[in-house]
Amino acid sequence: MMGSGVFANIFSLEHAYAAKDIEGKSVKDELTRIGYVGDQEPGQHPIGAYFEAHIEQGPVLEDNDVTIGVVQGVLGIRWFDCTVTGMEAHAGPTPMNLRKDAMQVAAKLMQEVVANAMRHQPHGRGTVGMAQVFPNSRNVIPGTVKFSIDFRNATDELVDLQADEFKAYAAKVSQETGLDIKIELVSSYPAQAFHKDCKDAVERAAKKLGYSNMPAVSGAGHDAVYMAKLAPTGMIFIPCKDGISHNEIESAKPEHVTAGCNVLLHAMLERAGT
Amino acid sequence: MMGSGVFANIFSLEHAYAAKDIEGKSVKDELTRIGYVGDQEPGQHPIGAYFEAHIEQGPVLEDNDVTIGVVQGVLGIRWFDCTVTGMEAHAGPTPMNLRKDAMQVAAKLMQEVVANAMRHQPHGRGTVGMAQVFPNSRNVIPGTVKFSIDFRNATDELVDLQADEFKAYAAKVSQETGLDIKIELVSSYPAQAFHKDCKDAVERAAKKLGYSNMPAVSGAGHDAVYMAKLAPTGMIFIPCKDGISHNEIESAKPEHVTAGCNVLLHAMLERAGT
Repeated sequence: MMGSGVFANIFSLEHAYAAKDIEGKSVKDELTRIGYVGDQEPGQHPIGAYFEAHIEQGPVLEDNDVTIGVVQGVLGIRWFDCTVTGMEAHAGPTPMNLRKDAMQVAAKLMQEVVANAMRHQPHGRGTVGMAQVFPNSRNVIPGTVKFSIDFRNATDELVDLQADEFKAYAAKVSQETGLDIKIELVSSYPAQAFHKDCKDAVERAAKKLGYSNMPAVSGAGHDAVYMAKLAPTGMIFIPCKDGISHNEIESAKPEHVTAGCNVLLHAMLERAGT
Repeated sequence: MMGSGVFANIFSLEHAYAAKDIEGKSVKDELTRIGYVGDQEPGQHPIGAYFEAHIEQGPVLEDNDVTIGVVQGVLGIRWFDCTVTGMEAHAGPTPMNLRKDAMQVAAKLMQEVVANAMRHQPHGRGTVGMAQVFPNSRNVIPGTVKFSIDFRNATDELVDLQADEFKAYAAKVSQETGLDIKIELVSSYPAQAFHKDCKDAVERAAKKLGYSNMPAVSGAGHDAVYMAKLAPTGMIFIPCKDGISHNEIESAKPEHVTAGCNVLLHAMLERAGT
């Protein structure tokens, strides 16, 4: 999303140029080397509308046996780190009722991350992807457990509501158990709803061409998120095998790719007024 | 427990001699160096009864403001490794109802480890001390979570019942969620109940000397566990600050140490028949 980010002035050209890969090679130097540094001012090119076709990177279309996803928008994301602090103690001599077991309180909160997302369907997501246990010894009741929380939803209001509900739950658990629970915001990505005219154009194109279709949301970021700041924007999803992406076994059927390209063409033609 | 283990023939003298510290120094070489290798056959020394005085290494006596713990026995221990296998997937594009989230199933099982121990009071223990998450990335639904389980109880029957109940629960969760749950026994230490005459002698000594006392159990191992194979055995516990042991801040009050020694003396005198 680097090019679209500069184009839409989300961050500066200099910021993008200065980015380096793990070998220390900068974007500026490599663009120069391959002759791709142009002289046009980023963002000057006029945009009437923006459409993007992509594999879904998730399993919903395949699960519903549908060819075209009419993308309604991209989910807002809130990333938190949660730290539960109890008291390390021997697993043998310490009776259950005198424990301050950080792992147990963390496990309870982890369950709530998912329960929270389940209450916020159809688009709510809640994921605990990372966890660290201290001291992480078989016969020691953990004194500290840290874990990550990833909340997502279709609007910023909904994802903020998820976060607020979780914080209130954690405060209640802290009061009930006497253990300290700290929740820190790590990153926040706003939700981006796509333009009604563009969503309609995608849906009409799919119907006209006879492809099965359904509304979809994107849980991952795309260039379309930044381009939506400049012009009416829409996206087209096609199924991918088992929802897998960014992986060598990523796979999409040729007939789905063809369908996605046809829908892209006809949506663009509609917006172009022909 | 190396000396008592050899004395009670739990393991061989050669096994103990061969043990090395982290610098590679062996027990045999170091005993020879300091002149402590004797010529008496281990276990030949006759034992009429065995008493051991110790800090509790737990918080129960302090919590109850009691001076002497009349130790009833040492808890049996079962150590397991539990591995939950789901399916790695992106935290964004994967809807809640299509996930195979190993972290969530593991968190549910971790909660049950404690709930299980709470159903087996007064002596049941359940601890999850270690956990590892794979791939342990903030925006990836975990595909695999491994964690340790430590179950303890006053008899082998009770601790085996805890383990059996947990395995049945895990089988049910595996069936409900479709995730694979593997439970492997890592170590097993039998429970050891102490001799009625010795427990009575400790209790009578505490009462005669006017010390507050209550029944206690040991969650950790002691020489008394091995010596109980050879002769009637008992233990005396005194409080330690915050239940902390094997730590530089371990602390016991002088008056409690005095009380423990007096109870030890009078229990031994009773058994000696004087």
